[in-house]
Amino acid sequence: MSKKVLVLPGDYIGPEIMAEAVKVLEAVNRRFDLGIELEHGLLGGAAIDAHGVPLPDATLALAREADAILLGAVGGPKWDNVERHLRPEKGLLAIRSELQLFGNLRPAILYPQLADASSLKPELVAGLDILIVRELTGGIYFGEPRGIRTLENGEREGYNTYKYNESEIRRIGHLAFELARKRDKRVCSVDKSNVLEATILWREVMEEVGKDYPDVELSHIYVDNAAMQLVMRPKQFDVMVTGNMFGDILSDAAAMLTGSIGMLPSASLDQNGRGMYEPCHGSAPDIAGEGKANPLATILSVAMMLRYTLGSAEAAEVIERAVSDVLDQGLRTPDIYSEGTRQVTTVEMGEAVLAAV
Amino acid sequence: MSKKVLVLPGDYIGPEIMAEAVKVLEAVNRRFDLGIELEHGLLGGAAIDAHGVPLPDATLALAREADAILLGAVGGPKWDNVERHLRPEKGLLAIRSELQLFGNLRPAILYPQLADASSLKPELVAGLDILIVRELTGGIYFGEPRGIRTLENGEREGYNTYKYNESEIRRIGHLAFELARKRDKRVCSVDKSNVLEATILWREVMEEVGKDYPDVELSHIYVDNAAMQLVMRPKQFDVMVTGNMFGDILSDAAAMLTGSIGMLPSASLDQNGRGMYEPCHGSAPDIAGEGKANPLATILSVAMMLRYTLGSAEAAEVIERAVSDVLDQGLRTPDIYSEGTRQVTTVEMGEAVLAAV
Ligand SMILES: CC(C)[C@H](C(=O)O)[C@@H](O)C(=O)O
Ligand SMILES: CC(C)[C@H](C(=O)O)[C@@H](O)C(=O)O
Repeated sequence: MSKKVLVLPGDYIGPEIMAEAVKVLEAVNRRFDLGIELEHGLLGGAAIDAHGVPLPDATLALAREADAILLGAVGGPKWDNVERHLRPEKGLLAIRSELQLFGNLRPAILYPQLADASSLKPELVAGLDILIVRELTGGIYFGEPRGIRTLENGEREGYNTYKYNESEIRRIGHLAFELARKRDKRVCSVDKSNVLEATILWREVMEEVGKDYPDVELSHIYVDNAAMQLVMRPKQFDVMVTGNMFGDILSDAAAMLTGSIGMLPSASLDQNGRGMYEPCHGSAPDIAGEGKANPLATILSVAMMLRYTLGSAEAAEVIERAVSDVLDQGLRTPDIYSEGTRQVTTVEMGEAVLAAV
Repeated sequence: MSKKVLVLPGDYIGPEIMAEAVKVLEAVNRRFDLGIELEHGLLGGAAIDAHGVPLPDATLALAREADAILLGAVGGPKWDNVERHLRPEKGLLAIRSELQLFGNLRPAILYPQLADASSLKPELVAGLDILIVRELTGGIYFGEPRGIRTLENGEREGYNTYKYNESEIRRIGHLAFELARKRDKRVCSVDKSNVLEATILWREVMEEVGKDYPDVELSHIYVDNAAMQLVMRPKQFDVMVTGNMFGDILSDAAAMLTGSIGMLPSASLDQNGRGMYEPCHGSAPDIAGEGKANPLATILSVAMMLRYTLGSAEAAEVIERAVSDVLDQGLRTPDIYSEGTRQVTTVEMGEAVLAAV
């Protein structure tokens, strides 16, 4: 049976990194006879330029039919003056919501070959392997009412609504516990239940969900303390689960602990395991077109896609091993370059992974 | 003219660190003839135990009359089973709100004597000196409506409201710019204006306020990127200004960059410069009563109080120099102890500062 993967290269470095990832995907597709068919679509700034909207109907239709989506990166200064509701990011938020991709997996893994890249002392991050599970289709990102209104006294007020209901919390909770089962069996739920009612319910439901997983340890931490602990003693965590806003902040902080955000993939899953896969980094307008972008996060997103949605853990491992091999060979794009290694371009890096696959 | 300082020792290590800070305050009071009169009150768990509420009327009345408040730390496991609206933290939130202490100053300073304590590589944090200015009486902490309700389908939903009006944003903006003027003249405003309307208004008003300070550079950053940049290149920042929730998270992360949160004071100011001063750290139930607590953050809070509210920069400097002296002498409480230094108790540390004053 064939599987459809929708490729959305996106903006700035998006197409460059995507070209390399697609080569690798096509190679494992042939080698393992996976029956994957690729389709292509536009999202973000590229879609605004072509169709005036960041998520065209055609893209959404393709996305609904696809088994998995591979996304490059969207956004950038070119669209800064576009009307707010038409900005590239809105396309990203809309596709997450339309496809109910509620489960965002953001691993923060330190590659031993890149241990020096971290801004933290080596002993604090050696072997770091955290998985942040972020709720992606609810919370303050999507809560209504929202807007900017004029008050009676003539002043303006900006407002948003942070909310979660039990089933939203439950489904992300189950995902986190399931994932923890395959890892070190520890879930740390992040909230601010000493202040926010929305997260009081969050904590209660997490406790409830935890009862179904007696083999997994559940702990709770306030978000401010979580930010501190990530800086101070990051290796204490296994799986962290949290809402959309806190997850946005903490996953970026955690990714940066590794010092090489150009290496980190992510997955956004729906209830049936279909998903969108993308690098954690952005569209890097400053280096677009210069062959400096690191394609490894996108290539590793392909591996995640094979594992979580396309049911081919074997092919995933081959890609992950290939990435590790090219690092062992000393190849580095500029973002991860250090003395004694060999600097290569986006394409050279892609070709090296391809050769190692 | 006499000045009133209300002393609120709080819970667990609160009274221990406060005892040392009060000694130092009394010493500079005598030496500089500042005419400071101390009053004492209960807040948090201590108030719950005595009066059943975390902010008794008597404390609030004293607080309203005081020029400045010196707070230890509140909260701890003893009150975990108290009804939610009577928890120790609610006393803290209530006093902030009742006195309209909207401007929370949280410096993250690395003491050269403690450079090793940071989890970051030394070259990234040497000389670190960031001031986070957090809005403290608005935003999602206080926004209504809020609560947990039952939906039509029988499910529960937790909800909170994130809102800021123009005058709230303007006053914290002015405070941040004024403070930046006395420092490196750079303000970085943190928001999530690509997603949250409340922070679109925030950014607009910051731009407007910035026009009154042509000598100060204003930049904007998204909160997720701010969390990353703090980990990666913290010294790029001078003053960061942000809302209540983001400020809670980022100020803790920034404080932890120094590795010695036991050293960091904070101020919470109202429109007239009256304020509450407290250490950044919590009530540390695990070490309470053992003489292990570091009193320096509270002692440095006294210095901040002298500078910002009581108009005695001279006395503030004497205290700050005394703290630096005892560090030079190699004295360390357990939280900042390292090989080759001398470990001392809370009281010994307090006495050493007193001798140096
Ligand atoms: C671009 C932005 C809307 C998005 C988010 O905040 O979710 C990004 O920061 C991310 O984390 O994927
Ligand atoms: C105790 C808690 C309510 C408080 C807050 O979130 O403001 C604390 O974390 C702080 O930062 O002072």
